[in-house]
Amino acid sequence: MNLNVGIDIGGTNIGAGLVDKDLNIVYRVEIPTETNKGYDYIEGKVIEIIEEMILQSSKLNGTIDSIGIGIPGISNPTGDYVRYCPNLNWKDVPLGKNLRSRFNIRINIENDATVAGIAEAALGVMKGYPNSVFITLGTGIGGGMIINHKAYTGSHGVGAEIGHMIVGENFYDCNCGNNGCLETFASSTAIQKYVINEIENGFTNTILLEKKNKGQEINTKLIFESARLGDKLSNQAVDRMVKYLTIGIVNIINIIDPDIIAIGGGVAKAGGFLLDKINDLLPKYILFKELNFGKVKLAKLGNDAGIIGAAMLNKYK
Amino acid sequence: MNLNVGIDIGGTNIGAGLVDKDLNIVYRVEIPTETNKGYDYIEGKVIEIIEEMILQSSKLNGTIDSIGIGIPGISNPTGDYVRYCPNLNWKDVPLGKNLRSRFNIRINIENDATVAGIAEAALGVMKGYPNSVFITLGTGIGGGMIINHKAYTGSHGVGAEIGHMIVGENFYDCNCGNNGCLETFASSTAIQKYVINEIENGFTNTILLEKKNKGQEINTKLIFESARLGDKLSNQAVDRMVKYLTIGIVNIINIIDPDIIAIGGGVAKAGGFLLDKINDLLPKYILFKELNFGKVKLAKLGNDAGIIGAAMLNKYK
Repeated sequence: MNLNVGIDIGGTNIGAGLVDKDLNIVYRVEIPTETNKGYDYIEGKVIEIIEEMILQSSKLNGTIDSIGIGIPGISNPTGDYVRYCPNLNWKDVPLGKNLRSRFNIRINIENDATVAGIAEAALGVMKGYPNSVFITLGTGIGGGMIINHKAYTGSHGVGAEIGHMIVGENFYDCNCGNNGCLETFASSTAIQKYVINEIENGFTNTILLEKKNKGQEINTKLIFESARLGDKLSNQAVDRMVKYLTIGIVNIINIIDPDIIAIGGGVAKAGGFLLDKINDLLPKYILFKELNFGKVKLAKLGNDAGIIGAAMLNKYK
Repeated sequence: MNLNVGIDIGGTNIGAGLVDKDLNIVYRVEIPTETNKGYDYIEGKVIEIIEEMILQSSKLNGTIDSIGIGIPGISNPTGDYVRYCPNLNWKDVPLGKNLRSRFNIRINIENDATVAGIAEAALGVMKGYPNSVFITLGTGIGGGMIINHKAYTGSHGVGAEIGHMIVGENFYDCNCGNNGCLETFASSTAIQKYVINEIENGFTNTILLEKKNKGQEINTKLIFESARLGDKLSNQAVDRMVKYLTIGIVNIINIIDPDIIAIGGGVAKAGGFLLDKINDLLPKYILFKELNFGKVKLAKLGNDAGIIGAAMLNKYK
């Protein structure tokens, strides 16, 4: 049995799986990332996971063709070094180099949103389309692009950074130093900051303030739930987020013109409620309204996309 | 001798040429477009040009392999119909269909910025790079994209519409109905509107006002000349244009991450003065400042790009 290992290194957890040729995860592991313990500790944990996967593979009489790793950042073109992972506090760490010197198996490292896009293109909602864009809405906003059925990351490996597309002017600056990045309007961090800013500026007639005074965290889930219940501030926040997310999607349509745009990540758990609002607003901004344009849909695979896509890197890149 | 015909239909002139295999224009024609006379008249003129090209080709003992036509708009995927050309007042006109029924030669129709991008990629400043983006700055803003050495226009032929990327909020709406399109900040129309709006709002200490009172047209050339001479309003207008153009370029870098971004069109005649300002500002907005990113350069071919690129459509698409 030919198997590939997919490892998804996130800010909270590391998920990993042995993936068979039909893209089933036949064995899986999940451990906390423990970012605070630093790079060497996490590298050690990744090595332990790979050793475990090799052991399980031999129990299944399988051979491992490749190991793919998704990271919340970018690597250098050879994959020897991870350039930046802001959420892990990694900068120029020799992940690929060290793993390659230890294991005689092909190792690929790629941005996690690109990896999830590959999985959605192979198995999920983007399946069968030549050109598609995956947007992951979480604490930040990431992107993965498929062009002519292949993952596309640009000439220097820094493409598909959709979260840092500038789409307007905002009341706070992005972590990257710019003002107006999509991620400062449409991430979970953005919607929380907006609501808290409005409350601090005197917006009182909202159930969010009651919840806040009771010590409850004003997170995206609560804001979306309150919006469904008719809370004015929550709806204002959701509508603002939808406006800028739709502008970001229209910019992607005007530049890339993909067959499909898939929305995944934690914020996408708002599901049809969010999707309907985007699709209601989209035609207002579309340039050639009478022509066909890319469809916006929810991603299908959830967290497994990170493992499955990583296991596919060897073939898909 | 194998030849291709390239025809560049613009809002002011129609340029056409017989192009040899080394991409030399061996015979050329230019006539006014006379948009006001309507579609049928212009189609008739295009037919006359093609007949003239066939005649000249036979005088050169040549054969015409294909006819390529660049249009300031978009065609349907087969090229039988031109969908929209706002500057020509064309909507769903049967240009390809009628020409194909008349001439037994392969005919390709494509957006003019894409066509110019193809020429720049073959002969000009984008030559040799797998991924590049051509931006044409004129009365509007157009775009042409080369991905993996091929012209890329998206899944529905409406990609690379860089001028309608939303990058901020502006004091007037775009022709397309949206607010904040790049073309409302960085086209020649945009810079003129901004200056006139500032003067109408009471900005008096400017040589532009003197020129205006003398009946001189406040066009982009005059604004750039006045900026070089130190005029405050002109510099304010140029700096604002450069800011948003740079944001547009950075958005392209963050999404497409090309090897090179080439700037052409009438506004690009401001040359090094404009380019230096963009390249000075660019690093401020770049996401991964320590990594390599696409270079911004001036396009090389000028008006000939429209003819040469059109003549290459058969091969390049």
